Amino acid sequence: MRREPVLVGIAGDSGAGKSTFVRKLQELLGHERVSVIELDGYHSLNRQERKLVGITPLHHRANNLGLFIEHLYRLRSGERVLRPVYDHETGDFSDPVWVEPRPFILVEGLHPFCFKVAADMYDLKIYYDTHQELKIHWKISRDASVRGYTVEQVVKEIRQRQWDIRNFVEPQLAYADLVICLYPVAANSAFHIGVKVKEPVAHSWFKFLHQKVAAKGLVREWVGGREMQVLSFEEEMPCEVVEEMLRGAGPRAEAVLARAAGGVKVTPYQLMLTLLVLRLEELLAERQEVGRRERYAVG
Amino acid sequence: MRREPVLVGIAGDSGAGKSTFVRKLQELLGHERVSVIELDGYHSLNRQERKLVGITPLHHRANNLGLFIEHLYRLRSGERVLRPVYDHETGDFSDPVWVEPRPFILVEGLHPFCFKVAADMYDLKIYYDTHQELKIHWKISRDASVRGYTVEQVVKEIRQRQWDIRNFVEPQLAYADLVICLYPVAANSAFHIGVKVKEPVAHSWFKFLHQKVAAKGLVREWVGGREMQVLSFEEEMPCEVVEEMLRGAGPRAEAVLARAAGGVKVTPYQLMLTLLVLRLEELLAERQEVGRRERYAVG
Repeated sequence: MRREPVLVGIAGDSGAGKSTFVRKLQELLGHERVSVIELDGYHSLNRQERKLVGITPLHHRANNLGLFIEHLYRLRSGERVLRPVYDHETGDFSDPVWVEPRPFILVEGLHPFCFKVAADMYDLKIYYDTHQELKIHWKISRDASVRGYTVEQVVKEIRQRQWDIRNFVEPQLAYADLVICLYPVAANSAFHIGVKVKEPVAHSWFKFLHQKVAAKGLVREWVGGREMQVLSFEEEMPCEVVEEMLRGAGPRAEAVLARAAGGVKVTPYQLMLTLLVLRLEELLAERQEVGRRERYAVG
Repeated sequence: MRREPVLVGIAGDSGAGKSTFVRKLQELLGHERVSVIELDGYHSLNRQERKLVGITPLHHRANNLGLFIEHLYRLRSGERVLRPVYDHETGDFSDPVWVEPRPFILVEGLHPFCFKVAADMYDLKIYYDTHQELKIHWKISRDASVRGYTVEQVVKEIRQRQWDIRNFVEPQLAYADLVICLYPVAANSAFHIGVKVKEPVAHSWFKFLHQKVAAKGLVREWVGGREMQVLSFEEEMPCEVVEEMLRGAGPRAEAVLARAAGGVKVTPYQLMLTLLVLRLEELLAERQEVGRRERYAVG
C-alpha cells in the first residue's frame, strides 16, 4: 500500500485571505503533516514580462498550469516535486523548493481547479469567497505595505481585475465542494467578520449542524449556478456552546476546538477552521481505512 | 458503453516532418475517423510577444499546456473540445476550431507527452526523430518559402534551438513507445530517405517482422536511456516482397499496403506508414473488443 495524500484545493481571488487561511490550517493540522503549494509560483511570466505582453496573472495562459497539473498528479501518487516560487516583492522567481507528499497537501491560488483534469484529482475543493469590501481592505494593507505598491495602484488594479476574475477565477465555483465566505457584519467594519459555509445540497457534510442552527435561520442560496445550503456564523460564542454544537462531529472535536479557539470565546472564523479541520481529519481517516482494507484484501 | 478514442501522441522537433506524417496517416485511416490536434495552437504567446519576452516556443512555459492537458482529458472521455489555432504565417492566433472525439485522435507537436500526466493518457506515443540533415533541408524549404523567413534566419534559428530541444523536446524519448527515425541514406541526399522503427525491447509490437528482417541485420540500440530493437528499411521493395513480409500482420495488411504504396514498389516511408496503420487498427479493435465485453458483463 502506498499512502496517498489528502489533496485540498483552495481557489479564490488575490487578497481573499487564502494564505492566512492556509497558515491557520497548517498550524491546526500540524506542520509536519502538511505541505503547501502556492500557485503563484507557476506564473509563466514575471512582473516585467507580464507588463511587456500586457496580460494579468489571472489569465490561465499567463501560468504554466501544465507543470502545475503534472505536480498535482505526481504528489497524488506519492512523489515529491520541485515547485517553482514567485516572489511578490521582487515580482520575479526565486529558488524552487521541494514539496513532500505529506498526509495533507494544501493547494492555494487563482486556478487550482480551473480545469476538470485538475478538479478530478482533489479530495476537497474549497472556493474562498471573501466579500469585496474585506478584500479591498486586506489587499491595500498587504500590497501597499509589503509588496511596494501605492494605494492608488492597488485600487486601480482591483478595478482592472474584475473582468478576468469573473472569467478565469469564479467559474471554479462550479467545481467547488465547499464555499467559504467571509464578510463584514456591520457596514464598513473590517474587524467584525462573519463567516458563511456553503455546500451543494446534494453533498452536505455538516448535516449534523443543520438542525442545530436551523433555529438561527439555515438558508438555501444559489451559488455559481447550484443550490447550496448555508451555515452562517456572525457572533462570538462561548466555548461550551460550540462544544455542545459539535457533539456528533467526531471524537476529536473538543481537542481541535481548543486549539483553534484557545480561549473562552470562539469567533466565527475559528469555528469555521474547526469544522474544516474535523472534515480533513475525517477524509484522512477514510483514506487510511480504505488503505487498510486493501492491504488485508491482498495479504 | 461510451466509445473512447485511440489517442496517439507524436512528439518531435519543428521541421521533423510531423505534419506530413499526420496527413498521410489521416488519408490511410480515413478522414472521417481521424481528428488532429496541433500543439502549436497552445502557444501562450504569439510571435511578437515571444520576441518581447525573449523565449522560444520550445520552453513549456511558453505554452498553455494546462489547457492542452484539459483537452486531452476531455477528448479521452468522449467530449468535443474547442482547440486554439496558431497561424505560422502571421505568427498569431486565428479562430479556434472544434475537435470531435473521432475513433483516432492524432496529437502532434513539440510537447505532447512532456508531462507524465499527459503521457499516461495516450494509447501510443511516437517520437518522430528525423535526422538533423533532413530537418535542416525541410525546414529551410518550408519556413523560407511559406512562413516568410530568410534562409539565414532559419539556419540561425535551428542553431539557437538546439539547447531547448535537448532540454524540452528530447526528454520525451523516455516515454515513447515507438521512435521513428528518417535519415538520408546517401551522404547529403535528402531524396533517398531510409526509415528506422525503434521499440523498447520489452514492448516489441513488430516481433513478427524481426525474424524476417534479421538476416538484413536486426540491431539493438540505446535510445534516450533505454535499449531498443531497431528495424531498418533503406531500399524500395517490390510490393510482393512486402506482402510476404507482412504475412502475420493481420487480415487487412494487404489492403492497407495497397493504399499506402499505390504502385508496384514500396518505399521505406510507405512501409513504415503501413506498419503503423496496422498497429493503430489493432489498437482500435482491442478497444472495441474490451467495450463489447464490458457491455455483455453489464447486460
